[in-house]
Amino acid sequence: MNVIFIGAGNVAWHLASLFSEKENLEITHIWSRTKENAEILKEKIDKKSIQVYHSLEGLDFSKTDADLAILSIADNAFESVLSKLILPKNCILAHTSGSQPMQMLQKASQNVLGEKIEKIGVFYPLQTFSKAKQVDFSQIPFCIESNDKEIEEKLFTLAQECSEKVFKVSSKDRGILHVAAVFACNFSNYLWTISETILKEKKLPFDMLKPLLEETLQKALEINPSNAQTGPAIRNDKKVIEKHINMLEEMNLDDNFCQIYRLMTESIQNK
Amino acid sequence: MNVIFIGAGNVAWHLASLFSEKENLEITHIWSRTKENAEILKEKIDKKSIQVYHSLEGLDFSKTDADLAILSIADNAFESVLSKLILPKNCILAHTSGSQPMQMLQKASQNVLGEKIEKIGVFYPLQTFSKAKQVDFSQIPFCIESNDKEIEEKLFTLAQECSEKVFKVSSKDRGILHVAAVFACNFSNYLWTISETILKEKKLPFDMLKPLLEETLQKALEINPSNAQTGPAIRNDKKVIEKHINMLEEMNLDDNFCQIYRLMTESIQNK
Repeated sequence: MNVIFIGAGNVAWHLASLFSEKENLEITHIWSRTKENAEILKEKIDKKSIQVYHSLEGLDFSKTDADLAILSIADNAFESVLSKLILPKNCILAHTSGSQPMQMLQKASQNVLGEKIEKIGVFYPLQTFSKAKQVDFSQIPFCIESNDKEIEEKLFTLAQECSEKVFKVSSKDRGILHVAAVFACNFSNYLWTISETILKEKKLPFDMLKPLLEETLQKALEINPSNAQTGPAIRNDKKVIEKHINMLEEMNLDDNFCQIYRLMTESIQNK
Repeated sequence: MNVIFIGAGNVAWHLASLFSEKENLEITHIWSRTKENAEILKEKIDKKSIQVYHSLEGLDFSKTDADLAILSIADNAFESVLSKLILPKNCILAHTSGSQPMQMLQKASQNVLGEKIEKIGVFYPLQTFSKAKQVDFSQIPFCIESNDKEIEEKLFTLAQECSEKVFKVSSKDRGILHVAAVFACNFSNYLWTISETILKEKKLPFDMLKPLLEETLQKALEINPSNAQTGPAIRNDKKVIEKHINMLEEMNLDDNFCQIYRLMTESIQNK
């Protein structure tokens, strides 16, 4: 399979690296709005024959022999990229986004006449990716979707070559998983950033919290988070809660820290 | 050392179990407001000679030969328990709370005349404890404090018998660590509970998020949370954010979910 990567961000970075190790997959083109990102990814894959593009005009791939185009770009770039994207007739277009409905892909064309692309699907790895951090794909759940049984099977098989955990998931359910993932991943990480900020301000090492973070997660995985809640909020320990809010106000690091403390406490108590 | 446990909650449960395995420590008494908790803990330790008390009058230990009393109760019970607690003159009183100042302990007495207790300290394991979940004490940071050098050393040595990570920490710094821990542990766990609730509502398995949770933490531990933020908020992806809020409103599970989504998103963007 000849594969085009459209996008060279965090997801594309890891997925393209993985694909480049597979004998049956050949990355032929990388497009990224940021030329540098595409060049760095090409370098990482270390394959000179890869062609790199970065202008919107460079999105006309109609003359290539691509079998699969992986669209892995920021959600807010979908419209502009898809409106310019032209793929050969038999090329499958699959995106890697948690929140974009599959049908969105039909804004791409399969020829210069602007005929709608037919072979579409989703190839969504439910994971957080940063370039600086290696990941083990074998344990990442892949959510696969297509409007065509045959394409779905192709994408499913491809995902199975990447991971042990492959699921057929509708656009609607993928959206639900994505919003749940934002709470579980992005927002949790931000809470840890608050902790880091508080400790840094008082010159205390963030390392002291690491065993707590690990145990908190292990416990949640073992007995489920709804059974694992501890702390002053669930005990309704008003004095401690008040003391914490006073401390946060005195530190005066960020007004939102206090607001988050109050709202989270109230929510835990309303449960 | 003869040790009294005042409290039989989550922390006391694990600490008393650990102490009972040490040859140089002898648990002689367990007090808990809830008689059943004290009895269950006694049973777990499996030592018939332990005496169990649960009434406030049972807090007069003046006639025992205790060397150390571990006060491990809810923060909001400190006042009432300490006002009744009487310990032999040479007994050290140490609490296990993250948020209570050490001086609070001077509300206990060292004899029936109500003379203030002198030998006080803090023995705080910075970890989340639930009875249902075993913990590895060797990696738990212990925060030690005392008003007396000799007692501090005693508590420090005792903590070193429990863990590789023992620190001398002032009441003020312990308070900072505790509020940081509430964000990092209690509030994160609640975010995961929200994810669990959302997925359950739509009959999607929480298990699908587990690799994401693990990777999110591993990444934060490796490159620090402030360098690990991903997601629609940090990308300022307005359409996805709006879509998520609409989904949460439609699901109508808990008004706070929407509020938390908005506030966390705004905070990440203000960073």
